[in-house]
Amino acid sequence: MNGEYWQPEIETMPREKLRQLQTEKLRRTIETALNSPFYGHRLGKLGITPQSINSVDDIRKIPFTTKQDLRDNYPFGLVAGNMKDAIRIHSSSGTTGHPTVVVYSRHDIDSWANMIARNMYMVGCRDTDVFQNSSGYGMFTGGLGFQYGAERLGATTVPAAAGNSKRQIMFICDFGTTCLHAIPSYAVRLAEVFKDEGIDPRSTRLHTLFIGAEPHTDEQRRRIEKLLGVKAYNSFGMTEMNGPGVAFECKQQDGMHLWEDNYIVEIVDPDTLEPVPDGEYGEMVLTTLDRTMMPILRYRTRDLTRIIPGKCACGRTHRRIDRIKGRTDDMFIIKGVNVFPMQVEKILAQFPVLGSNYLITLDTVDDNDIMTVEVELDDMRTDVYPELQKITRNIQRTLKDEILLTPKIKLVNKGSIPTSEGKAVRVKDLREGRGQNHAE
Amino acid sequence: MNGEYWQPEIETMPREKLRQLQTEKLRRTIETALNSPFYGHRLGKLGITPQSINSVDDIRKIPFTTKQDLRDNYPFGLVAGNMKDAIRIHSSSGTTGHPTVVVYSRHDIDSWANMIARNMYMVGCRDTDVFQNSSGYGMFTGGLGFQYGAERLGATTVPAAAGNSKRQIMFICDFGTTCLHAIPSYAVRLAEVFKDEGIDPRSTRLHTLFIGAEPHTDEQRRRIEKLLGVKAYNSFGMTEMNGPGVAFECKQQDGMHLWEDNYIVEIVDPDTLEPVPDGEYGEMVLTTLDRTMMPILRYRTRDLTRIIPGKCACGRTHRRIDRIKGRTDDMFIIKGVNVFPMQVEKILAQFPVLGSNYLITLDTVDDNDIMTVEVELDDMRTDVYPELQKITRNIQRTLKDEILLTPKIKLVNKGSIPTSEGKAVRVKDLREGRGQNHAE
Repeated sequence: MNGEYWQPEIETMPREKLRQLQTEKLRRTIETALNSPFYGHRLGKLGITPQSINSVDDIRKIPFTTKQDLRDNYPFGLVAGNMKDAIRIHSSSGTTGHPTVVVYSRHDIDSWANMIARNMYMVGCRDTDVFQNSSGYGMFTGGLGFQYGAERLGATTVPAAAGNSKRQIMFICDFGTTCLHAIPSYAVRLAEVFKDEGIDPRSTRLHTLFIGAEPHTDEQRRRIEKLLGVKAYNSFGMTEMNGPGVAFECKQQDGMHLWEDNYIVEIVDPDTLEPVPDGEYGEMVLTTLDRTMMPILRYRTRDLTRIIPGKCACGRTHRRIDRIKGRTDDMFIIKGVNVFPMQVEKILAQFPVLGSNYLITLDTVDDNDIMTVEVELDDMRTDVYPELQKITRNIQRTLKDEILLTPKIKLVNKGSIPTSEGKAVRVKDLREGRGQNHAE
Repeated sequence: MNGEYWQPEIETMPREKLRQLQTEKLRRTIETALNSPFYGHRLGKLGITPQSINSVDDIRKIPFTTKQDLRDNYPFGLVAGNMKDAIRIHSSSGTTGHPTVVVYSRHDIDSWANMIARNMYMVGCRDTDVFQNSSGYGMFTGGLGFQYGAERLGATTVPAAAGNSKRQIMFICDFGTTCLHAIPSYAVRLAEVFKDEGIDPRSTRLHTLFIGAEPHTDEQRRRIEKLLGVKAYNSFGMTEMNGPGVAFECKQQDGMHLWEDNYIVEIVDPDTLEPVPDGEYGEMVLTTLDRTMMPILRYRTRDLTRIIPGKCACGRTHRRIDRIKGRTDDMFIIKGVNVFPMQVEKILAQFPVLGSNYLITLDTVDDNDIMTVEVELDDMRTDVYPELQKITRNIQRTLKDEILLTPKIKLVNKGSIPTSEGKAVRVKDLREGRGQNHAE
């Protein structure tokens, strides 16, 4: 580390050299991937070997990998290393279909921690900072991911984990927290609780926020910055690609540098799957370049974004992606958790008293993101209040086990939820800046 | 590591050499501690320096440190190192009084991870094992403590975190979990859910359980072993002494080896504070020997145990402590969380509708530990059901913020809770093998 950069040579590497590095690392990645049952079969069939790659552009010879591929090969079909060398497993929420599983070697965990440290250093965090993490820990990558990265940087970490806003604020005040990792909706919530507690966040040492895992607009970011008196930096990551740390904003706050020494990024037209020119929106496709246990090649993220053309004033040569604009599937994110309507649907189907018609509404109430599931009762009398309460609680608990958060449940009479002619609208997103309705 | 032992030289060190090592490390610890405001003042006043220590027995020149000392010097009064070198903070639950805070340097975290790895290795865990951790993560030391230790060992870790039993069982089955860390009551709960799911735990690869953080009897351990078809090993630790890893059972399952290269253990009469002979019960007093950021000298743990006399068949020379038999204060442990009745009392006092009389009952229902708080209403009408429900929920939520678990609340009429002549009985523990009533 030196001045502005954590790893100056890598972060400011000339593009041509960076492409050479990518070519070499892609070859090594293919060599490793061939040891996994999944890629051994798929690439073997096509005769793809490290020698098939003469430049990064040859990546297009490799077929895409989809979430369905991960599900079909659950849990370890993509593991290329020896499981004896695995030191951690992370997974997405849920048991429906199958959760997405990622397996890490010690090298992979080290590489990931270094990536997070690089991001934190980039926006001015140093070993003198106190870093508080309000992510959930456990299988969710936002907890341990940032924990290891911040410790690598040498910051004093406060592993507060999710929830309990009063306690978060007590830690911020008492431990002199300077940097906080939070999902955007929770940052807004904290600002509210600061107000309730009669504490001005500006009177604390807090100066930097890392926000990610939830789509948000630049206006929302500016609002958070104003509410808490901090600079807020956007972060992109996903479990399949390790977790947080794939791309991160620099001090310019103008797009997220995607770390091209560790990932190859492509933006493709989601219909034709052909590459789109820089500056145009499309689906982001990512390839890992530094994973020894479970490399993933050309993963269709379903996230819509674009490459921001041009050089960044910060001097880093790694290209920038824009904020995530939406999804090409029906997944939505609430309180930092990825949810597919199918997960909700499969749980509801377990209750014989329920009909098959349901509607998920996402809304912001008092700066809190709320998920409401309206579902029609089949033919039961709807006036036995204690019984309805019991059913509601049961649904809530079962859904919580699946999606790891507790939605509001509204049981309604048969025929109450409008059915459209074509595809049923399953998700209504009324949250600011999100306004998408997902059809099934 | 070699055969039976992770660190053969240390684990089987002749007692005389071990005492020499302790003497040297105690001197270094005092030298470090003198840099903290708290010990600088307290030891300085008494003229205690490293030179005061000629043998381990000279530790008796040093005054005891109590939980109240930690509270009075919240948050960083015992920190002896430079905060720039701190990489993590853990703390106990709660905001009442002040939570207990421990600050760790990189050395301290490494030393702690090594201690956990030593424990796991001792009972047969190797880098080929899959280790699942059902502890809460975050500020609670059972999560990150075991995470770092198991990764140090090289096991494949599954950071499942607390709760969601169906998902825990899915991981055990799908990831081939062989070792599990759980509090005893949760291990029993998991056995129940296994049964509900129609899965025989003996059909999984699970063979080893680490149980701790909650007092339990040998009968309860045998029952857990039978229910899950595993060997279960008792673990002792506390946040003030890092967290888990202070003492651990070996394969003999006959007492927990307290790692004397890292801690000095004394057993004292809780009234006279004089040492009791080996084999006799008393309060355990612990001194850290390998912490650079925040050493603690002669900490009164309030835990009642004894040194088990004689040599252990395993060949380790570090002395063994017996199961914790009780406490010398009114703290109780439920679902692995330490709770002081005072924490509950201070929360209840925030609600004007409540009287000052309350009773906490701990009981086991359907293999689940339940905490019920009965509290008298002051003079409000007790028949407005929706209003009572609202108050109940408010109390529940506020208590959860404080003690991190959700108790059952029973609002009762004034005069319903019997008041005794002398000290009020605040806690009734009806759980198997715990049967203690705590007076205030």
